[in-house]
Amino acid sequence: MLQDGDIHVLGRQACLRLLGEVPVGRVVYTRQALPAVLPVSFRLDGDASVVLGTSAGSDLVRAVDGAVVAFEADEFDAVTHSGWSVVVTGRATVVTDPAEHERLSRCGPDSWMPVHDRVFVRIAAELVTGRRLPGGG
Amino acid sequence: MLQDGDIHVLGRQACLRLLGEVPVGRVVYTRQALPAVLPVSFRLDGDASVVLGTSAGSDLVRAVDGAVVAFEADEFDAVTHSGWSVVVTGRATVVTDPAEHERLSRCGPDSWMPVHDRVFVRIAAELVTGRRLPGGG
Repeated sequence: MLQDGDIHVLGRQACLRLLGEVPVGRVVYTRQALPAVLPVSFRLDGDASVVLGTSAGSDLVRAVDGAVVAFEADEFDAVTHSGWSVVVTGRATVVTDPAEHERLSRCGPDSWMPVHDRVFVRIAAELVTGRRLPGGG
Repeated sequence: MLQDGDIHVLGRQACLRLLGEVPVGRVVYTRQALPAVLPVSFRLDGDASVVLGTSAGSDLVRAVDGAVVAFEADEFDAVTHSGWSVVVTGRATVVTDPAEHERLSRCGPDSWMPVHDRVFVRIAAELVTGRRLPGGG
């Protein structure tokens, strides 16, 4: 699909700005030795991490706490064949500090479903890569 | 984000129908022992596999040929908090049969960038799962 000479490689700051434009991304992890992926609502927390919300008993929490995961977001236009994608890779940790949890409950990602036992997972933005397709196809 | 009682779990046929509605999905794989993800244009091939196009020399081809991968597609509405996601998991193989390659060049996924050494990767739809969020949030 992609040819190096035609893709615009994005720097870290450009990638983080784009992440701020979409409400949903996808967390990519390993579950029972297989590749797994789950769409989640998220927020950037400064420029150092991505924060997701999930329920305390979820498979996701068990699978990712302490593991290196990828987090992806994108937007594509099927008419112009243009768009962008950003991938954040880094270690995921469940937020356990009560003050931090309270702050994220106020300022963190929206919950799209009522969740009574909400926890937040922070993915450190250790590696941030992105690309833009200029379109015109 | 998701609470089991509020999510509609989708059967295989419903999932495959939804995959037919979007031009881009994301292939999820392992690269150098880390989770990796790449948006790609794709087509369903009947109801047994998903076909992607890429360039013969790409990292993607080297990483996925013969491996079990996941393929994800979704659509979400940030206003209504509704949407759906589908994940296909199965073994990926590069299409090597010349007649099959020719057929896919005519009927397979669009290429969003000019690619002179195009190969197709088939992901067997061994496991197909999906969910719908009804929204209203």
